[in-house]
Amino acid sequence: MSISVTVLAGGVGGARLAHGFALALPDGGAPSGGGGLTCVVNVGDDTERHGLHVSPDLDTVMYTLAGLNDEERGWGLTGESYTTLAQLERLGEDTWFTLGDKDLATHVVRTARLRDGQPLSAATGSLAASLGVRARLLPVTDDRVRTRVSTPSGTLDFQEYFVRRQHADAVLDLTYEGIGTSGPAPGVLDAVGGTDLLVVAPSNPFLSVEPVLTVPGVRDAVRASRARRVAVSPIVGGRALKGPAAQILETLGHEVSALGVARLYTDVVDVMVIDTADAALTAPIEDLGFEVLVTDTVMGGPDGRARLARELLAAVGPRT
Amino acid sequence: MSISVTVLAGGVGGARLAHGFALALPDGGAPSGGGGLTCVVNVGDDTERHGLHVSPDLDTVMYTLAGLNDEERGWGLTGESYTTLAQLERLGEDTWFTLGDKDLATHVVRTARLRDGQPLSAATGSLAASLGVRARLLPVTDDRVRTRVSTPSGTLDFQEYFVRRQHADAVLDLTYEGIGTSGPAPGVLDAVGGTDLLVVAPSNPFLSVEPVLTVPGVRDAVRASRARRVAVSPIVGGRALKGPAAQILETLGHEVSALGVARLYTDVVDVMVIDTADAALTAPIEDLGFEVLVTDTVMGGPDGRARLARELLAAVGPRT
Repeated sequence: MSISVTVLAGGVGGARLAHGFALALPDGGAPSGGGGLTCVVNVGDDTERHGLHVSPDLDTVMYTLAGLNDEERGWGLTGESYTTLAQLERLGEDTWFTLGDKDLATHVVRTARLRDGQPLSAATGSLAASLGVRARLLPVTDDRVRTRVSTPSGTLDFQEYFVRRQHADAVLDLTYEGIGTSGPAPGVLDAVGGTDLLVVAPSNPFLSVEPVLTVPGVRDAVRASRARRVAVSPIVGGRALKGPAAQILETLGHEVSALGVARLYTDVVDVMVIDTADAALTAPIEDLGFEVLVTDTVMGGPDGRARLARELLAAVGPRT
Repeated sequence: MSISVTVLAGGVGGARLAHGFALALPDGGAPSGGGGLTCVVNVGDDTERHGLHVSPDLDTVMYTLAGLNDEERGWGLTGESYTTLAQLERLGEDTWFTLGDKDLATHVVRTARLRDGQPLSAATGSLAASLGVRARLLPVTDDRVRTRVSTPSGTLDFQEYFVRRQHADAVLDLTYEGIGTSGPAPGVLDAVGGTDLLVVAPSNPFLSVEPVLTVPGVRDAVRASRARRVAVSPIVGGRALKGPAAQILETLGHEVSALGVARLYTDVVDVMVIDTADAALTAPIEDLGFEVLVTDTVMGGPDGRARLARELLAAVGPRT
């Protein structure tokens, strides 16, 4: 069996489900005979800190696939120290964006390689390989895309909104600066169009999934894909498992439920996966034209992730 | 009393004597009423590591003036850890150039400011101020100068020669790439020409002092300076206190002694300061046209440095 799975992912939720597939597939999802796992990751949350290029979603997926993610916190590496950050503060730098000493190595190397002319996808591939990641990790684009957040206090850079102000501002609108002139990174369209199973991770629909789909060519490739296309709702029992998805759905005028999420994915997904807590939403989601899979979608550690990935492979798995 | 002192410096030897003056002058050498300490520092040993701009001599002087230098080792900060470096190695980077976690913050900030368009002198000034340095710290030039070392194994980048190969290669020739089109950083010519006391530190004549003097305009400014001009020999008893000065003098055909050093400085220095161990060289050095001051030139910790600085101020101090 060599099944190919492509996961469209943002940060934590995407990382966890991707990790589940890496555990469920042979060889940690390494490419093999047309099979394997490819993660196509949002870069709208990328930022420059202290002159270094930081790709938080890519790193969360990379560290999680490498088994190095700080699970308690959700991001960053386990066993971190903050010696450099403390010194950066002493040197007058703003240090509200927490960077650990080990994590910093990733940003230093990535930045050096980008400055040497490597595209982000190549830099990402070699970083991931160095950390022992077997699956393929791709930024959705090598071009510069930056999510900007309109709030009652003005328009904010994404990390300003998300980290510095702890996503406390109401989100009035989101734009993805640069996305109109961006293009998919090498391998993205093939990974989307040619895969057996295409999974929209339980990531934030607006902060993570939309800036993946909106890169020119990606949404069309998803629509035209021969894959089984499945999305896991990031809203369970009317609440987001993590982050501001619920607030954002609400302020942007969407229902804060798996049904509200399903309405966003009518053109790109065949199967909605919802939590048992939301079983009552099965009929209205089916009415939108989806198949619905009801299961325990709340992944905890690696076992829960692998279980969910195996269920998806078994229940909605690739066309035969 | 507001005496102005300018020290032309490389790394460790220059840093120690500069520190002595910072201790001997009011307010740590802070500029005041035309007085104070200015350090004009070699940048020929600057390098790029992991995409970061590293200025080893500037940092050694800066850390020493800030009281943060690792005295035992001679370079870097006290109490360092190497978490990021270990991770850089894991990511496939060459890590023969040791960078501590705290030290790294300096390079990250400097690099960011250079990339933002700040000249090196401005970046250096704000870094030094952040660390509490009161004296003025200037790179001799804001332009890119790189010392290249011809050896029997070929031409090496300076840090390749110095750190990676531990200055074990015979030095056949030295060039300072870029120096011909470089210019002195803002403040350098005034600091050289307008100072009361101009001190050539006991730094390596070829690796540290020559790439300072050779920046166009600097040697002429030293020659024309109204200052008392004094050099402290880095060779004591026929040996270098630290580093490859002795080998280099020898392979380049110079006598390995304070006399050999004096011969290099006939056009830029009035007073040679030699160690009591070399008192017998007084007459031949005087024969070259120098005044000679014989004293204990081997500085240990801060007390020894301050003592030597005070002796220089007292014995050869500014013209009155």
